[in-house]
Amino acid sequence: MNAPTSLPLAITVGDAAGIGPEIILKAFHQQAELTQGCVVVGDVAVMQRALSLLQHQQQVSPALHIQPVPDVQQLPSAPHCVPVLQVGPALHADGLPAWGRVSAQAGWLAGESVRWAALAALRGEVAALVTAPLHKEALAAAGAPFNQFPGHTELLQFYAAAHAGVPVADMPVRMMLANAELRTVLVSIHVSLRQAIEAVTFDNVLQTLRITHHAESAALGRPPRIALAGLNPHAGEGGLMGREEIEVLLPAIAQARAEGIQVSGPFAPDTVFMRARARQGQTGEYDVVVAMYHDQGLIPVKYLGLEQGVNITLGLPLVRTSPDHGTAFDLAGTGRADPTSLLQALRVAHQRVATVHVKGA
Amino acid sequence: MNAPTSLPLAITVGDAAGIGPEIILKAFHQQAELTQGCVVVGDVAVMQRALSLLQHQQQVSPALHIQPVPDVQQLPSAPHCVPVLQVGPALHADGLPAWGRVSAQAGWLAGESVRWAALAALRGEVAALVTAPLHKEALAAAGAPFNQFPGHTELLQFYAAAHAGVPVADMPVRMMLANAELRTVLVSIHVSLRQAIEAVTFDNVLQTLRITHHAESAALGRPPRIALAGLNPHAGEGGLMGREEIEVLLPAIAQARAEGIQVSGPFAPDTVFMRARARQGQTGEYDVVVAMYHDQGLIPVKYLGLEQGVNITLGLPLVRTSPDHGTAFDLAGTGRADPTSLLQALRVAHQRVATVHVKGA
Repeated sequence: MNAPTSLPLAITVGDAAGIGPEIILKAFHQQAELTQGCVVVGDVAVMQRALSLLQHQQQVSPALHIQPVPDVQQLPSAPHCVPVLQVGPALHADGLPAWGRVSAQAGWLAGESVRWAALAALRGEVAALVTAPLHKEALAAAGAPFNQFPGHTELLQFYAAAHAGVPVADMPVRMMLANAELRTVLVSIHVSLRQAIEAVTFDNVLQTLRITHHAESAALGRPPRIALAGLNPHAGEGGLMGREEIEVLLPAIAQARAEGIQVSGPFAPDTVFMRARARQGQTGEYDVVVAMYHDQGLIPVKYLGLEQGVNITLGLPLVRTSPDHGTAFDLAGTGRADPTSLLQALRVAHQRVATVHVKGA
Repeated sequence: MNAPTSLPLAITVGDAAGIGPEIILKAFHQQAELTQGCVVVGDVAVMQRALSLLQHQQQVSPALHIQPVPDVQQLPSAPHCVPVLQVGPALHADGLPAWGRVSAQAGWLAGESVRWAALAALRGEVAALVTAPLHKEALAAAGAPFNQFPGHTELLQFYAAAHAGVPVADMPVRMMLANAELRTVLVSIHVSLRQAIEAVTFDNVLQTLRITHHAESAALGRPPRIALAGLNPHAGEGGLMGREEIEVLLPAIAQARAEGIQVSGPFAPDTVFMRARARQGQTGEYDVVVAMYHDQGLIPVKYLGLEQGVNITLGLPLVRTSPDHGTAFDLAGTGRADPTSLLQALRVAHQRVATVHVKGA
């Protein structure tokens, strides 16, 4: 393996009918230093179409240009250059997926870009993945193998497990949402609130704590201070408003602490995020909050503004971040998409790669 | 009834063993204009003890003094004067409830203060109630009639219903939490998350919308723009992650709109609060968010800091606000309690009284 600092960072193109290509180009235009050493994994003509749009609107420098690259290990470092690695057959400029429409073509390209970048990361050829948004319906329309994956997470999990030679069940992952103030990890994500309550089991909570401890120890270079949120109001108030804290969460915390994990709680959900919040240059009381369900963790992360959130997949043997928004089909092709969250995802990916390498050195 | 502006605002003392007396005195000391026309409803010796503490610590002006008043309609308006209306038998200075301890004596005083102030408000003798925190165990220890009430809300509801000559069930109330940026009204409060899901019924949601519309129309002087949060992640995403949005929330919204209520939704819970948030002098997209359960609504209100939240009881024929914190028995008697939330509760009470009267004039 090359020295870590020379490894490129892969940005997958996402759904070509969405805002992915546009926000990637805006990121290269706005933040030359941050995007130095990054390579777009996707399709040359798709990127060229977005570049033409932005240049026509005079939103990017006329000097910005697409540079097809055959290999991520030999990236050009010229200014204004956007290296693009073609995956699959190159699309023709007159046969590109229509902006704002679900298509099997765009779904396949999105899936194949992520598959390619994941394998490159697992082989140690790229340092991290930053994934532009894909569209679930398009991925489903793409056919095998991609139609078996509801989204990025399951796709990455599948290939990581295959690479490691283990069943997918042995590669558990959790979603972390982070902004400059707060990090939360979710016990469950896209299930109904009723199902989310059922998912608050000893095993699931303990697994979440283990994954969080392991991933954030690597990212921070020290064991994280984890706060566990309760499930019920006031964390159940001694069993008066729900018994999950007593029957599930306290035993999971006890086991995790016995394993050396620095976790406290269960805390009242309505104040734990405020307590963990870092502000005015001061760290919060905790480095990360483990939340019991999707909205418990996402409401506080998103409250200060969508553009600040970054999605980080924990549990995989690779670093993967993504912006905290979707394909925005309604904006695609207008030139009005905002690259802020993608830039933040790039920053976080860089930080996590740097810490892991410093720690591993 | 007197002209509205001449009506006093009643501040109930709360549990005498907690921080109520201290934060009330700090409010009078710090904000003479805001507390002008306010009367403390409670016990003279309890207030005198807190004043002695704060004067000993030189936290308040030596000129600040307690002025017993026999009648809320004849308040002194001298500077540095804290008018106190005695309810029940006056306590002796050497027989006061110990700071930080649950006692029947303090529970009774807290309950009787609220009962007295509620009846005065219902008779039109005070403009509004601002209630310092009481302690539920102390209220339970106080015996009849106060031991039948879990807290302020049920106590106020009981006397308001009795005054109106209707059953308590016909005086439904909802809790609103508000800070400078965000107002949320909760369908349910102190029940387990499982029970909260069961409480998301057509009737409960519609009732919440009606109460919110009525109360905020009075407070704002125009119909409020209400956002209804979903129950499930992404508001169920068309039934994929829970069907309550389709089966319960959409029908309740349709009925409410038919009644002239300006409500939209159901919206994804993780972004609706951010959308409703007012900031930098700009109003949010909505005036108020109806939340499906305790933590959904309280996490965003509290995220920016506990001291900013105010609790407002909607549905009663009187204005009642309170600070968004408890008795803080651990702080009682130390002089370290923070009056910020009480001051905010006073401000909000003044605003709501002023709007109601302007509208009613």
